[in-house]
Amino acid sequence: MSSVKVNFLAQQKEVEVSAGSTLLQAAAKAGVPVEGNCGGKGTCGKCKARIVSGGGGKASPVELKYLSPAELETGWVLACQCSLWNDVVVEVRAQKDAYHRKSDLNRGEWGVAIKPSVEKILVSMTPPSVEDQTPDCERLLGHLPQVRQDVSRDLLSALPRILREAEFKVTAAMAGGRLLAVEPGDTTARKFGLAFDIGTTTVVGSLVNLNSGEVLADSAATNPQNVFGADVISRINHAAGGGLRQLQDKVVGAVNSIIRQLLAEAGINKNEVYEAVVVGNTTMSHLFLGIDPTYLAPAPFIPAFSRAVEVGTAELGLDMHPGGRVVVLPNIAGYVGSDTVGVMLATRIEQREGICLAVDIGTNGEVVLSGRGRILTCSTAAGPAFEGAQIRHGMRAAEGAIEAVSIDGDVTLKVIGNTAPRGICGSGLIDAVAEMAKSGVIDATGRFVGPGASGLSLDPRLMARLRRGENGCEFVLAPAGISAAGEDIVITQKDLRELQLAKGAIYAGIRVLLRELGVSGEDVTQVLLAGAFGNYIKKESALAIGLLPEMPLDRINSVGNAAGDGAKLALVSKSERARALSLARRAEHVELSTRAVFQEEFINALYFPAGN
Amino acid sequence: MSSVKVNFLAQQKEVEVSAGSTLLQAAAKAGVPVEGNCGGKGTCGKCKARIVSGGGGKASPVELKYLSPAELETGWVLACQCSLWNDVVVEVRAQKDAYHRKSDLNRGEWGVAIKPSVEKILVSMTPPSVEDQTPDCERLLGHLPQVRQDVSRDLLSALPRILREAEFKVTAAMAGGRLLAVEPGDTTARKFGLAFDIGTTTVVGSLVNLNSGEVLADSAATNPQNVFGADVISRINHAAGGGLRQLQDKVVGAVNSIIRQLLAEAGINKNEVYEAVVVGNTTMSHLFLGIDPTYLAPAPFIPAFSRAVEVGTAELGLDMHPGGRVVVLPNIAGYVGSDTVGVMLATRIEQREGICLAVDIGTNGEVVLSGRGRILTCSTAAGPAFEGAQIRHGMRAAEGAIEAVSIDGDVTLKVIGNTAPRGICGSGLIDAVAEMAKSGVIDATGRFVGPGASGLSLDPRLMARLRRGENGCEFVLAPAGISAAGEDIVITQKDLRELQLAKGAIYAGIRVLLRELGVSGEDVTQVLLAGAFGNYIKKESALAIGLLPEMPLDRINSVGNAAGDGAKLALVSKSERARALSLARRAEHVELSTRAVFQEEFINALYFPAGN
Repeated sequence: MSSVKVNFLAQQKEVEVSAGSTLLQAAAKAGVPVEGNCGGKGTCGKCKARIVSGGGGKASPVELKYLSPAELETGWVLACQCSLWNDVVVEVRAQKDAYHRKSDLNRGEWGVAIKPSVEKILVSMTPPSVEDQTPDCERLLGHLPQVRQDVSRDLLSALPRILREAEFKVTAAMAGGRLLAVEPGDTTARKFGLAFDIGTTTVVGSLVNLNSGEVLADSAATNPQNVFGADVISRINHAAGGGLRQLQDKVVGAVNSIIRQLLAEAGINKNEVYEAVVVGNTTMSHLFLGIDPTYLAPAPFIPAFSRAVEVGTAELGLDMHPGGRVVVLPNIAGYVGSDTVGVMLATRIEQREGICLAVDIGTNGEVVLSGRGRILTCSTAAGPAFEGAQIRHGMRAAEGAIEAVSIDGDVTLKVIGNTAPRGICGSGLIDAVAEMAKSGVIDATGRFVGPGASGLSLDPRLMARLRRGENGCEFVLAPAGISAAGEDIVITQKDLRELQLAKGAIYAGIRVLLRELGVSGEDVTQVLLAGAFGNYIKKESALAIGLLPEMPLDRINSVGNAAGDGAKLALVSKSERARALSLARRAEHVELSTRAVFQEEFINALYFPAGN
Repeated sequence: MSSVKVNFLAQQKEVEVSAGSTLLQAAAKAGVPVEGNCGGKGTCGKCKARIVSGGGGKASPVELKYLSPAELETGWVLACQCSLWNDVVVEVRAQKDAYHRKSDLNRGEWGVAIKPSVEKILVSMTPPSVEDQTPDCERLLGHLPQVRQDVSRDLLSALPRILREAEFKVTAAMAGGRLLAVEPGDTTARKFGLAFDIGTTTVVGSLVNLNSGEVLADSAATNPQNVFGADVISRINHAAGGGLRQLQDKVVGAVNSIIRQLLAEAGINKNEVYEAVVVGNTTMSHLFLGIDPTYLAPAPFIPAFSRAVEVGTAELGLDMHPGGRVVVLPNIAGYVGSDTVGVMLATRIEQREGICLAVDIGTNGEVVLSGRGRILTCSTAAGPAFEGAQIRHGMRAAEGAIEAVSIDGDVTLKVIGNTAPRGICGSGLIDAVAEMAKSGVIDATGRFVGPGASGLSLDPRLMARLRRGENGCEFVLAPAGISAAGEDIVITQKDLRELQLAKGAIYAGIRVLLRELGVSGEDVTQVLLAGAFGNYIKKESALAIGLLPEMPLDRINSVGNAAGDGAKLALVSKSERARALSLARRAEHVELSTRAVFQEEFINALYFPAGN
């Protein structure tokens, strides 16, 4: 088989591949990273490269779709589509300059124009003279009429040298009318920002090109505050006991390590990152900002603040441009945080037709109900059952977790990573319980029918899985023989009760909001399941256990990490940020603990719906 | 001689003094501090005390002048006027509660209402409940509609605890719409501020009661930057060479030691001091704020900024309330600083009738000319001759300095502190030169007639004082026999030249401004001499040496430390602060180095005026 030589110009690398190989295969052989996230399927259009010499093939339909006529004319190809029959010289942008790795966030997908708060303006000034002694600051600001007049001391002090070294041609970086940085020459092509979703358990960050809106890198880390307790109440208590600074340092450290990882991955300098938009639950917002959360814990659950808070990056010690800004979006109440505002923002819940329900299931289940011109929120103390905590064999959705269960005569399991099961995660638990209810393993009150119960038409294979354990009945989901640890993975009566309390709280919260709005469950036209958990949950099972009001399946949709998407929207769009502030102000919080009707609904909601 | 017992109630002290002693003497014996700054002469009216029992003498004319009828009726006396003939019980306010020691600044004297930027408002809130979960910050700000929404993190963090400890009754301290502090209970009666004049040589500070406008204490200290050079150019060069932070630390240290002294003297806690207004020359403003002054030194003398700069006290490390603010008033040009704005503010120069000239004589002579609806400024490199530098026996106006000289046949000297002379200060130098010119010891070009010059009608006592020194002619002002150091105090030919250069620069600057405004020296209706030096200068001598244009003496007035007074005005009055900003914007700076006419005027101005 004949071979061809492929020379990668920018990387100064040459490889030989067999004729007919794709450019993507050649790049892989050469170790030259090429953009793209569809693995060569031709569905992302990201693996652009330019054939400098030796090209001339016909463009594929995929290339015609993703490349402009101008690009096609100047030799651009998609590496996965381009078969090589001659020696070629190819230009692939070095990855550290390739900001186009992901495109979650662009005009097409998000429906917003990329108009971030961070702006850059190139300013060319006439140098001073004895005839024109205008001071440096006033000289610059004369070209920036929209900018706030209170320039920071650091910037004032750096200005004289920068202006002269750059011969009075500089780029001004601004955000919200504030002058953040003055850089020599024209740097308008380089501006980046960060979006963070600070969860109690996990901190997720994204690096975004603020010129294009593209997401360049994502990264997540465990919230290291977890050493002071898994839930927000333990964290609040630790802060109240003098550990506030410690908790802040932990989460800022995690955020910084994510930033460093994102910057390294995308090849961006920290001084090119001017703004971060942060969402999180109300406790996390307090702790990240170092603000006393003590009075969030006891009734009446009062936050120190609900407004959006803007802080200098240097003040928080973040690894960004020292003149940059961090904006924490507003929270709504003690247990409805800016993450919920992010969900509202990303789902455009207030703009949707009809009655729309959004549920973000985590330790707390935040519920948003929108319709009739109102936006109602509440928070339900769902407890951590859905995250695997307080469940005998509960675990987070990681390799080895049973993520789906079906019972049809006998039990079938789906395990993350297709390995031997190690435990059961939230979606698996919901599936298992839904299927157990359907198959008659448990009754409508959530009680196991019990091993050896008579008069039941239970399949003997299921009956065999029922047994009496140390603390009452339990159901063997995975026998020791197939489990990773060599021990039975079971669901206990107590596990069932935990799940009932969790789903009952969410359901009751939904019911109270529906009442408040004067509508019923059937009136709900859309349900949006937010959060990572919402992605995995089986809709049928969610309905079967009574987590959501009974409704046609097609009304229920997962919306992924909508909270983080909301942070990104507020990062790339000033008007979206304004919408976030307006949504937070508009939202009416319903405090369930004051509603007698919540207790009533809650008790009713503990049972499993009839008809299963 | 019979004696009487004097019991000081508040201090719990008793002393015995001989009958007929004054209460002031008794207080001195008891070590009880009593207000007053005239040393018992009965000219300040400050040493108020109340005779609780044993009194009954007749009020002196001085007491009738300084005490109200109500005070006289309730036993108030002036301690220096009150002779003691019986045992008495006396109430003298403990000094730490005595805020009324000085009264330079009150409505009557300053012609402005005391309406400082710093405001305090008492807020009583309904505590939160499950029915009203408004967060703490929003709850407070709901009562402060005028306040800015960007509350500092420190304040946000402290708020929950303060509100609850104070049972939601707090005092909010604000300035310029910014929330500075939230204090438990009602502290509206306590708010204080600082005014600083940061000079190249001396830093002067005043502590002011922002409720009454009264100046509670004044203090001054040498600017410790002087170890890096006496003049601004040396300081700028040191900053440019990497010493900026060092220079800033020095001056901030001096400011802090003055603050501590003022607070101790007035018995005020630093957390009751919310704002400082600072003036200084442009270099000092840069250095105090830590802003690079490098390009102030070379032509075209460009400052980094001219605007007013506001900084948090914590950011600068000042010993005030950590949430407080420091405001440096705007400068006008590289060598016309906020101290000149202070002079303009305190003298109300723009509101005066006719053509008004203000001259602030120091290392630089700043000149302001106001009239015909314009305000012109210039700076003349007068050099430090008036401050005693580069003059053989020059010294600052301290004990032992010859401050006045008259020559009438022979020489008569006036020495500060009436001691043996140690040297000559600026006012003495001007006097001496004026008198030497008048008596014919020097000619119109500033040359000594020379010892042994013939054909002159010089008094032989003066001729005897003329001699040839190491560097040409010199005139013995004080012979070794009467001087403190036992050596002749002389004025040399070089001293004369230094003075000629200094006064010539100022005079030429004045002339250029007059030309710019299209008026002549005779049109000037008022001359205001600002600065400590202006207080001591003899008007006749200033005219005689040609420091000022020829004019009737009564048009010339000293206005004291008008720069510092301007800072105080901007501290106690929002509208005066606004006027300062407006004056700085309105002022038209005339850069003398670009004016050919300045060189010409300067050369002409070196000579002494005819007619002397």
